[in-house]
Amino acid sequence: MQRTRFADMACSIARTLDVIGEPWSPLILRNVYVGITRFEQLQQSLGISRKVLSERLNWLAHNGVLQRQKYSDRPPRHEYTLTTKGQELCDLLLVMVRWGDRWTAGESGPPVLYRHHACGQISHVELRCSVCGRPMHATDIDVLPGPGA
Amino acid sequence: MQRTRFADMACSIARTLDVIGEPWSPLILRNVYVGITRFEQLQQSLGISRKVLSERLNWLAHNGVLQRQKYSDRPPRHEYTLTTKGQELCDLLLVMVRWGDRWTAGESGPPVLYRHHACGQISHVELRCSVCGRPMHATDIDVLPGPGA
Repeated sequence: MQRTRFADMACSIARTLDVIGEPWSPLILRNVYVGITRFEQLQQSLGISRKVLSERLNWLAHNGVLQRQKYSDRPPRHEYTLTTKGQELCDLLLVMVRWGDRWTAGESGPPVLYRHHACGQISHVELRCSVCGRPMHATDIDVLPGPGA
Repeated sequence: MQRTRFADMACSIARTLDVIGEPWSPLILRNVYVGITRFEQLQQSLGISRKVLSERLNWLAHNGVLQRQKYSDRPPRHEYTLTTKGQELCDLLLVMVRWGDRWTAGESGPPVLYRHHACGQISHVELRCSVCGRPMHATDIDVLPGPGA
């Protein structure tokens, strides 16, 4: 397990990867986001082993990304919902989607479309500067050491 | 290896994870982005085995994210640069940074700061709608099937 090392790095990318840095976790997050919240549903939808799914769900709950709730006592059954921390992590998925749509979707086009509540239009996310509101990409910035370096 | 299955899913998140869905690849991308471009530098900086690094670099080059260039003939030595596809993937890192700064940096604060060229201010990325320009987050959208579903 890489977990300890990634969490110990003074890097917000590494620390984020410590939480979701293996491929199943973002897909679990995606499924919970679209309403596939119960263990059995998640397991069938993803086609992964119960053991792996259980480990990932426990890790995401331990990290405060998902909240675990019992919806049946007999038999005991649980479902998972996104915390605020988890909802904000879903923003990462939207940016993944944008890149994946552009570079991996091919001729058949985007598998999924997003309709923005505010304007009602099919759209995608764009990255903007929190100060001036203009486009902000990896090519538009200088990287400087911060207080937690 | 999960690769084939992820690439075959009709999901731009899964397909993106097929390219960078294990924790070292985003950190390799981060390092190349900040100018740590040579194999030896990358290996020392990340502290991973030459075998793992070599595999990851080959995979990222195979997927058109990195470009491999020889900078010395004797001995043969290579460096890696970001393609346009790779530069755009670095946007994902900025969004990881934002989440990691908010949720994992703790009291010591962000390890790294970003200065936006356009306004010269220390800032971070915000997600906006490509159509109306207003904030767009995972909680602000409906998900619909697309042409590639």
